[in-house]
Amino acid sequence: MTLMNALWVDTGVKLAETEKPAANGECLVRVLHSGICNTDLEIARGYAGFQGVVGHEFVGVVEGSTSPEMVGKRVVGEINVGCGGCDDCLSGDERHCPARTVLGIKGRNGAHAEYLTLPARNLLAVPAAVSDQEAVFVEPLAAALGITERTEVTPETRVAVIGDGKLGLLCAMALKLIAPDVTLIGKHETKLKIAQKRGIETRLVDKLTDADDNRFDIVVEASGSETGFATALDLIKPRGRVVLKSTFHGNANWETWRIVVDEISVIGSRCGRFAPALDLLAERKIEVGDLIADEFHLTKGIEAFKQAETSDGLKVLLRMD
Amino acid sequence: MTLMNALWVDTGVKLAETEKPAANGECLVRVLHSGICNTDLEIARGYAGFQGVVGHEFVGVVEGSTSPEMVGKRVVGEINVGCGGCDDCLSGDERHCPARTVLGIKGRNGAHAEYLTLPARNLLAVPAAVSDQEAVFVEPLAAALGITERTEVTPETRVAVIGDGKLGLLCAMALKLIAPDVTLIGKHETKLKIAQKRGIETRLVDKLTDADDNRFDIVVEASGSETGFATALDLIKPRGRVVLKSTFHGNANWETWRIVVDEISVIGSRCGRFAPALDLLAERKIEVGDLIADEFHLTKGIEAFKQAETSDGLKVLLRMD
Repeated sequence: MTLMNALWVDTGVKLAETEKPAANGECLVRVLHSGICNTDLEIARGYAGFQGVVGHEFVGVVEGSTSPEMVGKRVVGEINVGCGGCDDCLSGDERHCPARTVLGIKGRNGAHAEYLTLPARNLLAVPAAVSDQEAVFVEPLAAALGITERTEVTPETRVAVIGDGKLGLLCAMALKLIAPDVTLIGKHETKLKIAQKRGIETRLVDKLTDADDNRFDIVVEASGSETGFATALDLIKPRGRVVLKSTFHGNANWETWRIVVDEISVIGSRCGRFAPALDLLAERKIEVGDLIADEFHLTKGIEAFKQAETSDGLKVLLRMD
Repeated sequence: MTLMNALWVDTGVKLAETEKPAANGECLVRVLHSGICNTDLEIARGYAGFQGVVGHEFVGVVEGSTSPEMVGKRVVGEINVGCGGCDDCLSGDERHCPARTVLGIKGRNGAHAEYLTLPARNLLAVPAAVSDQEAVFVEPLAAALGITERTEVTPETRVAVIGDGKLGLLCAMALKLIAPDVTLIGKHETKLKIAQKRGIETRLVDKLTDADDNRFDIVVEASGSETGFATALDLIKPRGRVVLKSTFHGNANWETWRIVVDEISVIGSRCGRFAPALDLLAERKIEVGDLIADEFHLTKGIEAFKQAETSDGLKVLLRMD
């Protein structure tokens, strides 16, 4: 049995020597870099009872595959692996297969490890124009772009994004490509500045005024905070759309009658498709360099998780080499 | 000053002699019948701080109008009165005008009275084929049909409606006209039988099985109960749509992460348009006779409200003659 280093979650997260996976008909990927997502932090706290290697944002090199043309390729990978036989899978969308496994989230070991496996169909080659560090952002950028799969965004749509963490910033940057009128609302001047550099309007949450109320066609809740949804209800116009991006755990206490009276739609959005995200990075239409807070070696992964908890919402990366 | 009888809400509801309204450029309507809605019961409990004559479901006769052709007509009336100048009003939809008044709900005396006033543009003549009692159902039936303004319903859509009260029954009956696969879920065998007579499948809520889970494209929450939404999340399939119809007051405690992970849309729906509802009643495509629990004279209005609280969810009418 060959062993490898990995960040293992059962009760809390720890650095462990675990078995290097066998390909078993999938591709064996040597991980180069991975990214710590807020979902990882929630999983480490025990959400969903996941046990195994955590992590789902990565870039790596294929070392073994039943498809020889894949070997040696630098890849990112879609994280949902469907059963292949249900209506969702047959329609080409494994993301809602009821029997799916999800890399580092559900029934499948994840990316904060020296090796992982995924089916060849989940992997996309990364163009040379995209660095390893940038490629780690394909998954969260795809998730941000996934909003446009769930509800129509046009150049006329007035958008607010609540939350100036990495997810909120990526949502604001992605939607700004379609809708010029995007406002990012957050609590941290330093992070709002990252948005300002992209021409995105920003507002400190405690500086919101009556003029902001009912102004937006779409409000994206990406703060993961309990008060984010209440703020969204203030900002949204009647018949507007509130998009939920954060898997906030713990129940939210909502004034549901406002949703009825103002005929608001609340739209859940989770994962997006990788190819458009990769294209935007390759074409330099989205720049993510200044969203990186820090980088640690995998063996310093526990320190990295602590840093991610306190990194003011920007991305903490792990490197395996 | 001429006085009239009315059901007045300030702290609780009481029978009062109030001033008969002056037309003031609107139509003066002598009310024939009105219907007690659950919203009336919530208003009587103090919701939204409304003070005035309660009631918004009615049929009446126009007694005075600046439009002489209206006088003598038997009418029902759309309950939202917009400012006339905002974008919503100019687009022909006063229902979301931020400055709107709403009959018996917001800034405008309502229908549980001998007289009310509404602008001529709000009134629709009732065809002879529709009885007074049936005409009272135009407002709640329009609200049920309003679901189709908010989200697409096709013959292939699998629909569940939670709540076997009058609103739930009307929603199931209205949607059944478009989508054959409608299931009404409730707690009362007697009321589920009303739906069964229309060919609607029914299920007692405590007899739901795993086979019902994730089966429905649309789940309409019309129970107004705190548990209704949790049931809806069990029944809805991934990327399905939960329609909220009940102005349940008090906050709901929702597992919002399920909305994100399963990419569910939660769609608020309040008022609909009257003309299609009136047509369906006139064409006998919707029959409402067996939704009536009881009828009281306006002067017995307090008794009627008590009956409505305990009437097992069916409609209690008031008559003014």
